[in-house]
Amino acid sequence: MNMLQSPASSDRIHARYWLETSESPAKAAEIIAGEQSSGTFLALANETAELKERSGARVERLTVLDTVDHPSLPGRYAAGARFTRCELELSWPLGNIGTSLPNVLATVAGNLFELQCVSGLRITDLHLPSAFANVYPGPAFGITGTRALAGVAHGPLIGTILKPSVGMGPEQTAAEVQKLIAGSIDFIKDDELQADGPHCPFEDRVRAVMREVHAGADRLGRKVMVAFNLTGEIDEMKRRHDFVQAQGGTCVMVSLNSVGLSGLHELRRHSSLPIHAHRNGWGYLSRHPALGWDYRPWHKLWRLAGADHLHVNGLGNKFSEGDDQVRASVQAVTEPLWPHAPMHVMPVFSSGQTGLVAAATYAAAGIQDLIFAAGGGIFGHPAGVPAGVTALRQAWDAAVADVPLAQHAAARPELQQALGFW
Amino acid sequence: MNMLQSPASSDRIHARYWLETSESPAKAAEIIAGEQSSGTFLALANETAELKERSGARVERLTVLDTVDHPSLPGRYAAGARFTRCELELSWPLGNIGTSLPNVLATVAGNLFELQCVSGLRITDLHLPSAFANVYPGPAFGITGTRALAGVAHGPLIGTILKPSVGMGPEQTAAEVQKLIAGSIDFIKDDELQADGPHCPFEDRVRAVMREVHAGADRLGRKVMVAFNLTGEIDEMKRRHDFVQAQGGTCVMVSLNSVGLSGLHELRRHSSLPIHAHRNGWGYLSRHPALGWDYRPWHKLWRLAGADHLHVNGLGNKFSEGDDQVRASVQAVTEPLWPHAPMHVMPVFSSGQTGLVAAATYAAAGIQDLIFAAGGGIFGHPAGVPAGVTALRQAWDAAVADVPLAQHAAARPELQQALGFW
Repeated sequence: MNMLQSPASSDRIHARYWLETSESPAKAAEIIAGEQSSGTFLALANETAELKERSGARVERLTVLDTVDHPSLPGRYAAGARFTRCELELSWPLGNIGTSLPNVLATVAGNLFELQCVSGLRITDLHLPSAFANVYPGPAFGITGTRALAGVAHGPLIGTILKPSVGMGPEQTAAEVQKLIAGSIDFIKDDELQADGPHCPFEDRVRAVMREVHAGADRLGRKVMVAFNLTGEIDEMKRRHDFVQAQGGTCVMVSLNSVGLSGLHELRRHSSLPIHAHRNGWGYLSRHPALGWDYRPWHKLWRLAGADHLHVNGLGNKFSEGDDQVRASVQAVTEPLWPHAPMHVMPVFSSGQTGLVAAATYAAAGIQDLIFAAGGGIFGHPAGVPAGVTALRQAWDAAVADVPLAQHAAARPELQQALGFW
Repeated sequence: MNMLQSPASSDRIHARYWLETSESPAKAAEIIAGEQSSGTFLALANETAELKERSGARVERLTVLDTVDHPSLPGRYAAGARFTRCELELSWPLGNIGTSLPNVLATVAGNLFELQCVSGLRITDLHLPSAFANVYPGPAFGITGTRALAGVAHGPLIGTILKPSVGMGPEQTAAEVQKLIAGSIDFIKDDELQADGPHCPFEDRVRAVMREVHAGADRLGRKVMVAFNLTGEIDEMKRRHDFVQAQGGTCVMVSLNSVGLSGLHELRRHSSLPIHAHRNGWGYLSRHPALGWDYRPWHKLWRLAGADHLHVNGLGNKFSEGDDQVRASVQAVTEPLWPHAPMHVMPVFSSGQTGLVAAATYAAAGIQDLIFAAGGGIFGHPAGVPAGVTALRQAWDAAVADVPLAQHAAARPELQQALGFW
């Protein structure tokens, strides 16, 4: 799917869709545009031409792709109906809702997926007027802020996720962190299943983990960045954030779909730490290609609302997304939001990552300003965690230098050994 | 889909799924249970039997339904794979996350939809330990509080949605409200596309509309309830709520998917007015039957987080959901959450509603404690809005008395005339 060619000078909200419809595409486009602005199922006398001109959504572009015999989504279609697929771009006047992300969501992705003439609908891009950048400052830390706090000036941040995901108590968690810091890792995160349960209370975990981070800092000369999952209600998140900060922590993590756009924005307003944004639940939003969300429009909302690190899955991942989808996500997340307000974030790669995909990942991202999180790719190293971390760094060095892994491994025993198990 | 037989005495979190998998169902169930608790893709030494016993998710039930040749969702399956469909129930110890709704979401609907062995996954029910009722008080007003504020002791609240959805300024909106109040309507709501845009600023709209509501109250002896859409960022929502309250308003409305669970809960904590909860975006969560959410588990989260009125679509609606789905939603929303903490909310029926579906709606709901919102069903009445509202009330009287509409209409000209255009 092509990216939306930014209507940079437009003061309207633009959204692009992949649409499949039982109607003629032109009629379906008008139905959707009407339903999502001034129209409704019935023609109303007070929807005047003037009102429609002022507030109606506009069909900016409609390109027919092909026609099929079977609908992608079940529904109540006429017998013998055929289904036309097209690319649709709509726009809305900013005056309808103003610069409000929650209301952008209701406008571009509200009731339209349920329309009877829609047999498939997926939002593929979103472009907002730059006035949004005045209201939503985007990531407070992004790439440079994260690098400064992590004490990692160059190269990817080599990271991992604490496992088992849930079940370890605070001290057991701290012991795992201690091993990882001893291995000179850059970044550690809670699993999204680990929050503030009675078995591993948030504050006890943060306290125990930060003890190790501070001890490690004496040796490493930098504080390993740990993303503590503070997902919860607004007051809880603020309290947990303040606790992390008071303990000298440098990152907090939140599950985006759990707290919502308003939740993230409120956390962003309160936070003085980078926000590691987890996309768990992404599957129910995206897994059927004829329904829901592409990553491109979806991630823009969260980026604008304040995410500093955004998950993009990983190449060769263990989930269902193919590499093409991951590459599209990486491309989206590394593009500037606006020329004057790029709002760069750090993409987070995870799920079955090893040094074997470093070169392809570097090719996809075009930058090293990313978090590369591996589990088995580190812990599986026969010489232990430090060698696992070193091997990942070596693989990235090879990728950046455009040297084949095997060649680079010749004088580097950690990488050499890693190639045997990755 | 059967409802989850409440494991009333369980102190675990239970979720039920419709699952389609390329694996053997037993293996797929274990993979999902592992991924969503202590396990991961690799066997880890520190995932001890003790830890697993304490924190692992448990497969409570697995019932194979059938096997098919083609996957419901695309993915990377082995050539020649067949796909088995089953009902799966999992449970988690409360100790993993504690009584936190945002973390329930990440646990029961996190990364599992993306698993490679999953060719279809839909969450069909959710049961939480009653400890949640101690932390989340649910709706503050629900049925009785709404009836008291609306001044409607019996029968459904007859309502409508302001149209055109967006484009009217404050005074034009107030003029529409004035007409509806003159017609003795019970309930009016903003469209979800109408928020706080520069063309119709929230405070100006509320002020103008409430002027009409107060004027109408002098005549009706009750304040018509108007749900003002305050969807926005947390601070904006609180400010707008306070303004509505200061103007004597009796209801606020919010787009659930826009503000998230944490956003709704924070609004609930702040609010001293009923919260009218709009589900726009429901289509992208539910439209493919092999993916995402049934209404039953989804609505429970929002109900617990504080929704007072919950949209359920309507019978014979203009969207894509069939009547069976609507009936299932109505059944879910009218059941108690727990025997000691039922947390009853008002279901909201809308989309192409007329008196013709009153009897079927009453049969589905079993109660008259609901909001029945019609647009064309009121405005289309040849004798005007008052007759349209009266005709809807008459249709509901007939439904409750179990009298055929035509018979009931004989001595009631408003209903008689309505039957000609509904």
